Amino acid sequence: MSVSTYTVTGMTCGHCVSSVKEEVAEVPGVTEVDVDLASGRVDVSGASPDDAAIRAAIREAGYEVAV
Amino acid sequence: MSVSTYTVTGMTCGHCVSSVKEEVAEVPGVTEVDVDLASGRVDVSGASPDDAAIRAAIREAGYEVAV
Repeated sequence: MSVSTYTVTGMTCGHCVSSVKEEVAEVPGVTEVDVDLASGRVDVSGASPDDAAIRAAIREAGYEVAV
Repeated sequence: MSVSTYTVTGMTCGHCVSSVKEEVAEVPGVTEVDVDLASGRVDVSGASPDDAAIRAAIREAGYEVAV
């Protein structure tokens, strides 16, 4: 189990948080997604989920990964 | 058919717009809901839908009616 942290820009409300959570949760290996709206911090827990797939999922939800 | 205009505060993104549209569209008599995110303007068309029910639907979606 590992936790990877991303900074996501463009989220403005709880609906945005839900969208990111739902998309990232679908990435194979992801077991938990924590999102802090105010800071844009997204913590992804799982059994080594693919970094590129997580970034793609965030973009798919309609947001940008800053870090 | 009439059109009533409301000013809604708190909408920050397209998800918010969708939430308001969905809730208001469920009010009996409502046939069309147009929302402008930037201004918060919500135009509700229909066969005399109940004003109080529309305001309640907007609050139910999680937003405030300013006017």
